[in-house]
Amino acid sequence: MAKIKGDFTLPGESGFEDLTLSLAERWGADVIRDSDGTQLSDKIINTDYGIYSTLCLIRSDNQWAKANKDKLQQNFLMSFPVTAMEDEVIISPLKGYFKEQFIMNNLDDPKEFWQVFDRTTGEEVPLTDWEYNKEKEEVTIKNTKRWHEYTVNFLAIRIWEEISMYNHITNDWGNKEHLMAVEPRHVEVQEHMLKWLEEWCESHPKTTVVRFTSMFYNFAWFWGEDKDRRNLFSDWGSYDFTVNPIALRAFEKEKGYKMTSEDFIQNGKYNATHNAPTKKYREWMDFINEFVVDFGKKCIDIVHRYGKKAYVFYDDSWIGVEPSGKRFKEFGFDGLIKCVFNGFEVRLCGQCDAVEIKELRLHPYLFPTGLSGEPTFAPGGDPTTDAKRFWRNIRRALLRKSVDRIGLGGYLHLVEPFPDFCEYIEKISDEFRMIKAFHKEEKPYVLPGKVAILSAWGDLRSWTCSGHFHENPTRDLMNILESLAGLPVDVEFINFEDIKEKGISKDIKVLINAGCKGSAWSGGFYWKDTKVVETINEWVYEGGCFIGINEASQIEGGFHTLQIAPILGIDIDDNDSKTCQGKYGYEVDKKHFINEGLGDIRIPSHQGVYLIDKNTQVLMESDNVPTLTVHEFGKGKGIYLSSYRYNTENTYMLMKLLCYGSGQEEKINEYICNNPLMECAYFAKGKKLVVINNGETTETTTIGTKEKGCIEVTLAPYELEVIHLD
Amino acid sequence: MAKIKGDFTLPGESGFEDLTLSLAERWGADVIRDSDGTQLSDKIINTDYGIYSTLCLIRSDNQWAKANKDKLQQNFLMSFPVTAMEDEVIISPLKGYFKEQFIMNNLDDPKEFWQVFDRTTGEEVPLTDWEYNKEKEEVTIKNTKRWHEYTVNFLAIRIWEEISMYNHITNDWGNKEHLMAVEPRHVEVQEHMLKWLEEWCESHPKTTVVRFTSMFYNFAWFWGEDKDRRNLFSDWGSYDFTVNPIALRAFEKEKGYKMTSEDFIQNGKYNATHNAPTKKYREWMDFINEFVVDFGKKCIDIVHRYGKKAYVFYDDSWIGVEPSGKRFKEFGFDGLIKCVFNGFEVRLCGQCDAVEIKELRLHPYLFPTGLSGEPTFAPGGDPTTDAKRFWRNIRRALLRKSVDRIGLGGYLHLVEPFPDFCEYIEKISDEFRMIKAFHKEEKPYVLPGKVAILSAWGDLRSWTCSGHFHENPTRDLMNILESLAGLPVDVEFINFEDIKEKGISKDIKVLINAGCKGSAWSGGFYWKDTKVVETINEWVYEGGCFIGINEASQIEGGFHTLQIAPILGIDIDDNDSKTCQGKYGYEVDKKHFINEGLGDIRIPSHQGVYLIDKNTQVLMESDNVPTLTVHEFGKGKGIYLSSYRYNTENTYMLMKLLCYGSGQEEKINEYICNNPLMECAYFAKGKKLVVINNGETTETTTIGTKEKGCIEVTLAPYELEVIHLD
Repeated sequence: MAKIKGDFTLPGESGFEDLTLSLAERWGADVIRDSDGTQLSDKIINTDYGIYSTLCLIRSDNQWAKANKDKLQQNFLMSFPVTAMEDEVIISPLKGYFKEQFIMNNLDDPKEFWQVFDRTTGEEVPLTDWEYNKEKEEVTIKNTKRWHEYTVNFLAIRIWEEISMYNHITNDWGNKEHLMAVEPRHVEVQEHMLKWLEEWCESHPKTTVVRFTSMFYNFAWFWGEDKDRRNLFSDWGSYDFTVNPIALRAFEKEKGYKMTSEDFIQNGKYNATHNAPTKKYREWMDFINEFVVDFGKKCIDIVHRYGKKAYVFYDDSWIGVEPSGKRFKEFGFDGLIKCVFNGFEVRLCGQCDAVEIKELRLHPYLFPTGLSGEPTFAPGGDPTTDAKRFWRNIRRALLRKSVDRIGLGGYLHLVEPFPDFCEYIEKISDEFRMIKAFHKEEKPYVLPGKVAILSAWGDLRSWTCSGHFHENPTRDLMNILESLAGLPVDVEFINFEDIKEKGISKDIKVLINAGCKGSAWSGGFYWKDTKVVETINEWVYEGGCFIGINEASQIEGGFHTLQIAPILGIDIDDNDSKTCQGKYGYEVDKKHFINEGLGDIRIPSHQGVYLIDKNTQVLMESDNVPTLTVHEFGKGKGIYLSSYRYNTENTYMLMKLLCYGSGQEEKINEYICNNPLMECAYFAKGKKLVVINNGETTETTTIGTKEKGCIEVTLAPYELEVIHLD
Repeated sequence: MAKIKGDFTLPGESGFEDLTLSLAERWGADVIRDSDGTQLSDKIINTDYGIYSTLCLIRSDNQWAKANKDKLQQNFLMSFPVTAMEDEVIISPLKGYFKEQFIMNNLDDPKEFWQVFDRTTGEEVPLTDWEYNKEKEEVTIKNTKRWHEYTVNFLAIRIWEEISMYNHITNDWGNKEHLMAVEPRHVEVQEHMLKWLEEWCESHPKTTVVRFTSMFYNFAWFWGEDKDRRNLFSDWGSYDFTVNPIALRAFEKEKGYKMTSEDFIQNGKYNATHNAPTKKYREWMDFINEFVVDFGKKCIDIVHRYGKKAYVFYDDSWIGVEPSGKRFKEFGFDGLIKCVFNGFEVRLCGQCDAVEIKELRLHPYLFPTGLSGEPTFAPGGDPTTDAKRFWRNIRRALLRKSVDRIGLGGYLHLVEPFPDFCEYIEKISDEFRMIKAFHKEEKPYVLPGKVAILSAWGDLRSWTCSGHFHENPTRDLMNILESLAGLPVDVEFINFEDIKEKGISKDIKVLINAGCKGSAWSGGFYWKDTKVVETINEWVYEGGCFIGINEASQIEGGFHTLQIAPILGIDIDDNDSKTCQGKYGYEVDKKHFINEGLGDIRIPSHQGVYLIDKNTQVLMESDNVPTLTVHEFGKGKGIYLSSYRYNTENTYMLMKLLCYGSGQEEKINEYICNNPLMECAYFAKGKKLVVINNGETTETTTIGTKEKGCIEVTLAPYELEVIHLD
């Protein structure tokens, strides 16, 4: 009997039709997709499988783009600083930037959009003190001061779409055409794009799902001329590439005030997602989101008119497409696809309620090499172990929140020499379908009461800290999210406006704020708002628990360095300015509930942390500095951690902190493994306990259950077992 | 034949007359002094030895002080913060402070001097919104906001002089009278003090030197009620104890504007010497210094009228007595005495040109225990080794800059069970007299060109970083000073005004700025002055060398984190706000001149340091972060060190950096030991080379000389040898 197909997307490859169809059978695929660089042959297309086809509209018709170079995408750049040696400075704005990516915008009046700054004083140079010479592509600045550094904020046109550029250069594609990204703010671009899409749908009757990658604006990625520093700026969430004269003028018309170039340049820091966003920048984002949704909907409507589904692949040109954005549902997407390395990415995808189908693109990608160039499907590679490790990361999150489908991508023929891999994918597919089936019945057990993450972004950047885990290994919140992704807790994401407008909702038991000072994650200047501080004080005093990590709530020039120091019972002497002040001594409370049964945990210290209340309990220290403290505040608690890194021991400690913080210490022994290498999900109605081993060795755990008391479970490496409690 | 006496001050002790006189003979003493707690008997006084007598005028006549409690010293304190839970807050300002040290000033109108702050917003509460109840000693604040923290800045009267209080409590003196410090701003106090001093001089005809400890105002030292945190604030250089209504009103009258309580409280940080001082605070210091000198001179005149010398012991009540202050010479002191643990303190004393006699009080002090309570002249103690280590620290500085006398203090009889110690002091005294004799002939060799230390204090805090070395082990500048103290370089101390007013003098070859952000040592906000930045840029460009250490030149909100980043070729991403920006890679240049022949040096890294110029050379790194870099800037150089700690290897490295920075690499091989444990001083005219071993093992070094080429010297532990090069 044929295996039941389902919920699996297979990358087909023409020339390997038999392999495609046999693996589709074995892995239980119901859909076949194309990938970058692969084609589906008629033999594959003319089966009964569903067919996904990848489209990226902004770079789809390069002939048209080349014929319409005045309609390419733009962005603001800041010139490299030039030091004045005289009372006149000449700056070539593009100097230092990759000339194959950028050209000057010589179309619009510089004085309308550009700005020149004396960066030494921070002051803008008056418009009358500089001139742009379009022929020489130089800005001449007058009345400069010797030794001051000057920069020009200017509009650049991008002549090479970044993903195309990256693949081209990385793979040494030589003379292959450079794709360009057109700007959909132009009416002509919109008309052309819709017409092109219509024709495409017409000519691809077998495609059942159009997989958009993603919509119109890529994350920001500036390259430099210097090969030793190609990457000048890259941010997964920045709206820098949404800038152009049409949008800038439309914004001003709508809002009555103008976005300046410096609103984007930010003293050379740009609007990196990691940095606390200004309110003005967030209004720009909202304005762009409105446009992307409005025009995106028109594209999706066409797809629907042809009887096809529209899925969005949440990557590359995803700016303005945030699934947790308030307008996302209006797109009308049928599915959301997310490539995943880690658990938090599963939750990022899984949380979206605005689409019918949520799908994960698993790793390893079927490529000879991985992200860092290491061999995968190539001699020296071990794709099976890679797959196990990725699945381990992902599975624990899937236990908490299911999605609808999984799949792979890349060149299918590469798997042939790796029969182990093919077998393991079969196993994964079966595990996935089983977990999904459990979720269909009921939501698994969670610790009563919600955990909320407080950041400047709130829900808009829920389950993400900008980019992949390996790009942010030292971001505390990234690590917290990865831990939380597989813990039995309900997580919510809020920002400072939420707190001001709605207070802190009653069902939130623990509020977490984590990150370095000034960052969007800790909140930066948003903590200067006293209403926020008042509300949080009140909430903790009445029984809430605030977990502050690293430089949570830190501001400049306050009475306390951490605005919530009175709650935490500790503060930070950020610049040794309180060296002369006596500090309380302390004893480490090694017998505290949190420390009981924990393995060897060493939290790196943060210089300058000191107790401001003698009743603050120190649970851990490093270098004679407290690293984990708890403090009673009214009926509630403040918990401080100087740093948080994702690993199994710390994840278990975090779970204990959540139980303790929410006043439910006893819950750590209910449906939770006491071996940090193991985790479980409890499905109460079905009396099923799914236990997993995240370790690479055989592990044993005890788990407290209401049904059968304390049970013991032993599992082989990476193994999953379903325990029936009835 | 009797040994030649000279340049040595011995602490005499009555009851031990024979010991006193025999050790005086053996150590070559010419002066006998009393100490706290010791008396000199007639038998001692009536010898031909000079006699030092210790006086501290402000606490000398406690009977009078007790009868004049309205004339005691005062200071501003900030109440502990109180959180508003309603729209009214009641604060007992003294709550939490040590009631035996402080009482409320109920004499003056609170509304004239006090201030109340909402520390959550940082705003002052209007005078109309608070009232002080003198009977209850409570401040009631109206219209408070729930969850905001409020504090009261108020005037407190001190009823226990701090040095007396510390000794009393530490030694458990029980019912012994509490000494009080009178405020010399009162005319009556001045009259009484001068009369008392006159009578004292009259009744002490044998005293040859009056040793003032020191003048009128002690360093700030606030104690708390809580025994677990007795020390609330202590700062060796703060002018907090100079505050009182008379001075405040006189300041306002003279300057036309007023010092507020907040000018002293500084958001709870007070004016710790470590923090960059406001210009207003520096004007207050100047105003106080003028008074201390004016009235101090009157006291010294009396001493002189009685044919005695007046020396000042640079400690305790030394505020307003800075030897490098512009008015110090006006006091008319004949001598300056400094207790020394370290080399920098030798230089601090030795640099003073305004007195005839400079004297060092050596350690260990003749007490049963040392500063941290460890045994010295007691069972378990090893005072000889202690003495060797202190002498090792001190001797290397004496090789560079001599003083006139040395001496001891404490209870002389304690040395009896330690014949080794008595012998070692004899050796030290002879070494000292020999070094002094060499200096009398000529100044020893120094590297051509001066080294200048740039800080917010400049010359006023030259050769100090506030307090002892062991109190500031992690202050970079403290460590730099200790290294420099024994290096063959001329050192000058300048501040930001010096640079603005006079530029950087031609004979300065290297400028050092070291410390954490915001500190007085790095300069803090003074770096916002673009004139300073311009001048330094110009100076380096023309050939100077700037050594920046740790957070040198760091400001908030600038284009660069370090204002002189373009000179250094590196900058710091202080809060991960530039994570998204690509950074240059680098190779560590292990063959650079600086790295040649250096031992294993590991400089702790500073998070976020990165190259802003690909031509910046990285000489050392830790944790994949550059820790020592050099960068060409015009004809000059920028050198960055992420941290500096005093030890022999680092001191040698610093010397190499000074040679390199000043373009004199070859000088590292001239009259400088190539073994970092050894140092030498070259007296060119006399063709003498004084070589010392700072190590605790026998060491060998080679030294390049013009006279005899490269010579090799081997010395026993701690040994000194004079090599005659003729």
